[in-house]
Amino acid sequence: MSKVKSYAALSSNSLLKSHGIERRECNADDVLIKIEYCGVCHSDIHMARNEWRESSIYPLVPGHEIIGVVERVGSRVNKFAIGDNVGVGVYVDSCGECKNCKSNLDHYCENGIVLTYNSYEYGTKKITYGGYSEKIVVKEGYVIKIPDDMNKSKTAPLLCAGITTYSPLRNFKIGSNHKVGITGLGGLGHMGLKFAVSFGAHVTVFSTSEDKRKEALNFGAHNFVNVNNDEESKQAINSCDFILDAVSSNRNMSKVFSWLRTDGIIMTVGLPTQPHQIWSFDLIDKRKGIVGSSIGSISETQEMIYYCHKNNIYPEVEIIPIDQINLAFDNTVAGKVRYRYVIDMSSL
Amino acid sequence: MSKVKSYAALSSNSLLKSHGIERRECNADDVLIKIEYCGVCHSDIHMARNEWRESSIYPLVPGHEIIGVVERVGSRVNKFAIGDNVGVGVYVDSCGECKNCKSNLDHYCENGIVLTYNSYEYGTKKITYGGYSEKIVVKEGYVIKIPDDMNKSKTAPLLCAGITTYSPLRNFKIGSNHKVGITGLGGLGHMGLKFAVSFGAHVTVFSTSEDKRKEALNFGAHNFVNVNNDEESKQAINSCDFILDAVSSNRNMSKVFSWLRTDGIIMTVGLPTQPHQIWSFDLIDKRKGIVGSSIGSISETQEMIYYCHKNNIYPEVEIIPIDQINLAFDNTVAGKVRYRYVIDMSSL
Repeated sequence: MSKVKSYAALSSNSLLKSHGIERRECNADDVLIKIEYCGVCHSDIHMARNEWRESSIYPLVPGHEIIGVVERVGSRVNKFAIGDNVGVGVYVDSCGECKNCKSNLDHYCENGIVLTYNSYEYGTKKITYGGYSEKIVVKEGYVIKIPDDMNKSKTAPLLCAGITTYSPLRNFKIGSNHKVGITGLGGLGHMGLKFAVSFGAHVTVFSTSEDKRKEALNFGAHNFVNVNNDEESKQAINSCDFILDAVSSNRNMSKVFSWLRTDGIIMTVGLPTQPHQIWSFDLIDKRKGIVGSSIGSISETQEMIYYCHKNNIYPEVEIIPIDQINLAFDNTVAGKVRYRYVIDMSSL
Repeated sequence: MSKVKSYAALSSNSLLKSHGIERRECNADDVLIKIEYCGVCHSDIHMARNEWRESSIYPLVPGHEIIGVVERVGSRVNKFAIGDNVGVGVYVDSCGECKNCKSNLDHYCENGIVLTYNSYEYGTKKITYGGYSEKIVVKEGYVIKIPDDMNKSKTAPLLCAGITTYSPLRNFKIGSNHKVGITGLGGLGHMGLKFAVSFGAHVTVFSTSEDKRKEALNFGAHNFVNVNNDEESKQAINSCDFILDAVSSNRNMSKVFSWLRTDGIIMTVGLPTQPHQIWSFDLIDKRKGIVGSSIGSISETQEMIYYCHKNNIYPEVEIIPIDQINLAFDNTVAGKVRYRYVIDMSSL
């Protein structure tokens, strides 16, 4: 075991601060990664503050949008070599034996994935600690290759915000014959927008932030609806085949359903802290639905990285040093980030 | 216009009682039907009691599972002749011009269907009155042919309970490669069960009524889960590809989602009076969804009638005279009916 520097929440109401943690030895199947950048996901905040069903374990080291360089490899590792650029996303292990794991749906492992942080390792039952840290040890099967000429700081958020929006759009085979809505133009939403546009869809952004109108159009949106503008919202009724719902708060879902056409589907990736209130009337009239999606498999994450590399698709990021993380959390909650904070881990 | 006998609710808290209404003349495109049987749908109760979003218009004559005989036809009618056995379901008109009407999805008419009762006719804006009545006048395009050798009283509920469950099962192409759950073994649920079994699916009935276990198995169910039996419910976790949710009341939806496998879909046809509480966690974990479905188109209803005729699929019914309707309402709410009341309209 080796001790590494990290930033941790020690309780649900404490600020994040410098905290030493222990990483396991680099075992035969492991890769030791020196972390260079780590994205700040809204989940990090929910988890640090214990806002999801009392599920947080302290000390809690957030971070699951990790980019780094391989510093050591275990004896059986053959996919990676020292010096490789790599990424780690939301999970670092799965059972490998269930139907889902054997069908490239390991992110839906029936025995439960091991999250990159706030989870227990299989076998050892040790708590996992995330990417707000100097180094991390990960089984090679859960490490993503990052092409050398990718922008590292901008690549970090692809590991969660990227795959979380890429996967449902791919699952529903979004293409040029679709009108797609994106609700919420935050870290996830702006990636969903870029992907949907790149897949050829006609895309409308639904946002409560008038000041994001111009940026949405710059990112490729064909239309922008200010949700608080009744006239605009009304014009959008019956206009979308799919809506990628990237909002993490509870709101009037009848309004969102109204924007769907017959047979329209809301693909939801947000995790509000309370249940959605969904009227059956909104579902059965015009055969509408809501379907969830959570991140993507390791193989799909790798595919997404190559897709972004090939098509030059990146998030908008603001790079911060680690000592600004508490302010960054507050700004993220307040919707002030454009569009993803990424921590430069050399500041640790 | 002609005056006909009917049973009506005169307010949300009055019992149904005999009440005269006027039917329009049999116009060129109309068919005048002498009603022989009318099924008692749970919707009739919600509507009579104004339990759905304050939408009831009084006097309210319920009934949209109508079987009768053609007594007169308009000058342009060519599909029907006097003496034909016919049916009328949940709606009696649609715009005929929108995208849905032109795609055999007239039940999802973008300009709104005219319900068989508690609706306003296109043009005249007159209130429509349903099948708890002596006669009804309906445009021929909304009248269903009933083969002469079908059991008339048992055929009535097919016009709503039948098509409401047939349509989503067909839409999702349910077949022998599917494990299907049916929640709620009432008027709708028992038809869903019979259809799903006839399509070759492996079917599990989920019910709170232990006394329906034997009947469910008799109707062809392969498995029965008493929802209040924790052990049985637990064994059903991760077992269904689809669940046809035919429950009209609000309950713990997390439990229902738990019975779905990865990529599982709840097809919901019930209309609880309050919104469902749906946790995003239940949707995004294993990419599950809930999709609504409302009745079926006229052409699909006709297809379903022929399917039932060919495959000898009928609901279980209890035939009652009209003067027992108020007791029948109470019994339906209490889940005491096996499985659909059908009014013998000759008793009017």
